[in-house]
Amino acid sequence: MERRWNVYLSGEIHSDWRERIPAGITAASLPVDVSAPVTDHSASDEAGVRILGQESDGFWKDHKGAQVNAIRTRTLIRHADVVVVRFGDKYRQWNAAFDAGFSAALGKPLIILHDQDLTHALKEVDAAALAVAERPEQVVELLTYVIEGRL
Amino acid sequence: MERRWNVYLSGEIHSDWRERIPAGITAASLPVDVSAPVTDHSASDEAGVRILGQESDGFWKDHKGAQVNAIRTRTLIRHADVVVVRFGDKYRQWNAAFDAGFSAALGKPLIILHDQDLTHALKEVDAAALAVAERPEQVVELLTYVIEGRL
Amino acid sequence: MERRWNVYLSGEIHSDWRERIPAGITAASLPVDVSAPVTDHSASDEAGVRILGQESDGFWKDHKGAQVNAIRTRTLIRHADVVVVRFGDKYRQWNAAFDAGFSAALGKPLIILHDQDLTHALKEVDAAALAVAERPEQVVELLTYVIEGRL
Amino acid sequence: MERRWNVYLSGEIHSDWRERIPAGITAASLPVDVSAPVTDHSASDEAGVRILGQESDGFWKDHKGAQVNAIRTRTLIRHADVVVVRFGDKYRQWNAAFDAGFSAALGKPLIILHDQDLTHALKEVDAAALAVAERPEQVVELLTYVIEGRL
Amino acid sequence: MERRWNVYLSGEIHSDWRERIPAGITAASLPVDVSAPVTDHSASDEAGVRILGQESDGFWKDHKGAQVNAIRTRTLIRHADVVVVRFGDKYRQWNAAFDAGFSAALGKPLIILHDQDLTHALKEVDAAALAVAERPEQVVELLTYVIEGRL
Amino acid sequence: MERRWNVYLSGEIHSDWRERIPAGITAASLPVDVSAPVTDHSASDEAGVRILGQESDGFWKDHKGAQVNAIRTRTLIRHADVVVVRFGDKYRQWNAAFDAGFSAALGKPLIILHDQDLTHALKEVDAAALAVAERPEQVVELLTYVIEGRL
Amino acid sequence: MERRWNVYLSGEIHSDWRERIPAGITAASLPVDVSAPVTDHSASDEAGVRILGQESDGFWKDHKGAQVNAIRTRTLIRHADVVVVRFGDKYRQWNAAFDAGFSAALGKPLIILHDQDLTHALKEVDAAALAVAERPEQVVELLTYVIEGRL
Amino acid sequence: MERRWNVYLSGEIHSDWRERIPAGITAASLPVDVSAPVTDHSASDEAGVRILGQESDGFWKDHKGAQVNAIRTRTLIRHADVVVVRFGDKYRQWNAAFDAGFSAALGKPLIILHDQDLTHALKEVDAAALAVAERPEQVVELLTYVIEGRL
Repeated sequence: MERRWNVYLSGEIHSDWRERIPAGITAASLPVDVSAPVTDHSASDEAGVRILGQESDGFWKDHKGAQVNAIRTRTLIRHADVVVVRFGDKYRQWNAAFDAGFSAALGKPLIILHDQDLTHALKEVDAAALAVAERPEQVVELLTYVIEGRL
Repeated sequence: MERRWNVYLSGEIHSDWRERIPAGITAASLPVDVSAPVTDHSASDEAGVRILGQESDGFWKDHKGAQVNAIRTRTLIRHADVVVVRFGDKYRQWNAAFDAGFSAALGKPLIILHDQDLTHALKEVDAAALAVAERPEQVVELLTYVIEGRL
Repeated sequence: MERRWNVYLSGEIHSDWRERIPAGITAASLPVDVSAPVTDHSASDEAGVRILGQESDGFWKDHKGAQVNAIRTRTLIRHADVVVVRFGDKYRQWNAAFDAGFSAALGKPLIILHDQDLTHALKEVDAAALAVAERPEQVVELLTYVIEGRL
Repeated sequence: MERRWNVYLSGEIHSDWRERIPAGITAASLPVDVSAPVTDHSASDEAGVRILGQESDGFWKDHKGAQVNAIRTRTLIRHADVVVVRFGDKYRQWNAAFDAGFSAALGKPLIILHDQDLTHALKEVDAAALAVAERPEQVVELLTYVIEGRL
Repeated sequence: MERRWNVYLSGEIHSDWRERIPAGITAASLPVDVSAPVTDHSASDEAGVRILGQESDGFWKDHKGAQVNAIRTRTLIRHADVVVVRFGDKYRQWNAAFDAGFSAALGKPLIILHDQDLTHALKEVDAAALAVAERPEQVVELLTYVIEGRL
Repeated sequence: MERRWNVYLSGEIHSDWRERIPAGITAASLPVDVSAPVTDHSASDEAGVRILGQESDGFWKDHKGAQVNAIRTRTLIRHADVVVVRFGDKYRQWNAAFDAGFSAALGKPLIILHDQDLTHALKEVDAAALAVAERPEQVVELLTYVIEGRL
Repeated sequence: MERRWNVYLSGEIHSDWRERIPAGITAASLPVDVSAPVTDHSASDEAGVRILGQESDGFWKDHKGAQVNAIRTRTLIRHADVVVVRFGDKYRQWNAAFDAGFSAALGKPLIILHDQDLTHALKEVDAAALAVAERPEQVVELLTYVIEGRL
Repeated sequence: MERRWNVYLSGEIHSDWRERIPAGITAASLPVDVSAPVTDHSASDEAGVRILGQESDGFWKDHKGAQVNAIRTRTLIRHADVVVVRFGDKYRQWNAAFDAGFSAALGKPLIILHDQDLTHALKEVDAAALAVAERPEQVVELLTYVIEGRL
């Protein structure tokens, strides 16, 4: 009976990394189930008020939305075997760093993905990781090695 | 392999909300398993003494019954991914608030369901929730969004 | 070196029970430190908006206030050795039942205090308690016995 | 015997907020012990290589330094009753968001401090907080209320 | 997808209660998987030395055997949803009481089974239980009610 | 600043072992605080009904008493660094074995004290211990060695 | 529904013990899923730098590799019901002892496997184990007994 | 009120590193309490049999001794803020690696101390550490920086 691994993909939503990792997993036939936050940006922003009622104050609109999204993200992180967090060069992505800290405190193995020029800014996050990579394909190689023992 | 979500429905037993949520889940084809306390009021009251022996003192009759019910409720709450608690306008429903506190301490995402006129009385409970809604259909919409990412 | 016990008093704020327990503790010279939520009702309601900014919507006013109060209550409950929760005959007191559930999930010994006519309504809460009493003096007697071994 | 509270101040190091909070605590005579990361920027960057040996590669220099700092920060966060995290308008401050996530997963009450224009970017972090404030003086007022019950 | 319940049967091995409970579960078609310690008394006593090498000293023979049995019992108790412990009128059965304490500390719902004349001797164990019964059939009735809601 | 050790003495109440251990600790000037259940047998039996109200049914009298005693014992065990449990040759002492199991599940180092003729009956309890001794003076020697490093 | 057991095999990689245990499990038709670290020595050494980039400094090459391997080993140990650790007579095998300590702190039942002449050197590791054996066939016998109750 | 740090020194007992660290702590006036296993080699070997009775079989003599020592070491590690483990070039020191794994699973910050020629053999242990140093003086410098922020 083959054990399946749960891998959660947190962070940057403006590049195609979240498609390339599952594509690589499929190509490598790895026993991995991938999960992620809702990456439809406007759905994610609107979910709170659309379902639970409009807010005139932007703070509470954001609050409602972020808490609804947290139902998903915290549940999936708690069920993950490995958490991958990618940081891009745009936006502040504090939610990505929050997820990394949350996962670290739960003892989840962390893989961090970012370009080299973010190294200094991400040093505290990288310091909590078991692997720091630059390209999504490296994550697939890591999973292939970690799960199947193949390089 | 699709992940299924366990959702526990705690609280009010005098309206049809506990039927409307599973109906909505089925209609939306969500991968959700719903659980709940025993909602047959007299069975719930009688279970302790019927199985374990009559009591002359009402306190101990209630005690036996409540502890037997706790075997079910605490087990199901511990296995739940999300706990939904509904408060109605009748009765004191202290067990609903107890379940909310119990779930909060375990780190379970909480959805609280109640009419607007209970807002002030429920403020401490709502403050521990990730979503506060009024109608059962909103819970289905929340689950649809949280699990499938669809608004 | 004498061990001191932390006892948290949650619940009803409309009778003098929270004064009678410390008075009894002092009279019995027990090594007990008592803590409690803020019991100044209007301060408790206003704290959120007074410190963090007004809200036009009552829901968010209550939310802010309840979360600020939770900083205190959750910290004190986590540090408590014993949690006492009193239910009175007025108001819904859902926060009291929430605190009882929260404490139960953390494994804290619970003492519940209420009049006999609330027995049926509180059966699930009582079922999680190690003692159910009616008068604050009984709590002092319990603490005297539990800590000093004197009846 | 008065209980003392441990409050950890994480985040932004380019304004004087970390002096204003202790000053306010002293002025209000609160029983609070404040802790914080090392805020001497160059010491913090150099600590790893200075003590453990130089590195030619910037990544490993940062890694060594960040891990040495983590000995301090993780220990102090674990011992904190309340964690305050401030975000400024400069730099990415991913370590601040990391600390917020780490603290949230440990169940620590979180107070987040930032200007209003960061509200949308910080919505996931704020959603995990029990209070969101703009000025350090509000943190002192929160602690005064939470600990002493005074508004 | 029906949830199955794991029920662990600890304690007395000299009556047929461990057969009567599974028989009742089958008759009632309950979704329950039953587990138990090895109840072949001589196998249980001999397992340690037979597999790991003889001992001349009785203490170490017992020690080896008891530790080998603990690999099974602790694993099964950790996986159990409900732990049932039966005390008979013969022998000291300290392992049964040990299992009850072990399960209680893990927060497992406990059902204790014994004759009335053991009530006083077992009061501390019973005090940690959610149900105290006399006959194995009552355990089946409890499971039927707890899982299916039927009395 | 010398660290003090908390040692909890559970079990047999019909010999003088609970006096001999503190006497030995004092003689050896060890930094140890000793705690124990209430050992006044009749106080322990009567505490529940005397404080919380009489019961006509012996089961509930015992239940009330045992739960009141559990407020003390579970709190002290949770705070203990080391738990010592002594079994005598009289009575069933199921509470002693329960405490041993409870302590084992919490990861507390266990020292078990009993005569050699109980070895077989106590094998599962002994198997969870880090030391098995026969005389209280051995416990003092163990604490002297463990704390001070002196044989 | 038969429960399957997860058994993790840590330690020595220079003898055929890791083949003999699964062979024995298959022969005995045990419901056991076996997992292990990557035992291809050069793959294990090279994985870090091959996937994440070369290092000139041996320390960082080893560090990268060991952390990548830790993604696998810590995940599998956390999911294991039983952890078996074998020590051979060559090399220092500190990772084996590290895994034993890691497993012990998580409360995993430990089986240690080594020749008699290592007894003194391994006494602290053995002291944390529930069984100490010399030959892989004994592990199969242990699993047969523990899972099926057969000697 | 100055917070004191507990630092546990595990591992090698054949050099003077365990004296040099406290000497450095005293010289630097750090608020640190140092603890360690019993380092008197023969006392450590003899403690079990001397206190609890002789054994003819070397395995059980070692077992008794190692378990008695574990009462001390596990308690002190659980209370430590930081765990330092030193590996020397002699002996196998599996207990040192065991302590490192045990501490890692508990989330303790680890500092590993060893000469460069052990780097490859210790790579899995080092990979779990927040600092790897060669000389005891570096540990003092680390503590000075971590606690006081001084380089």
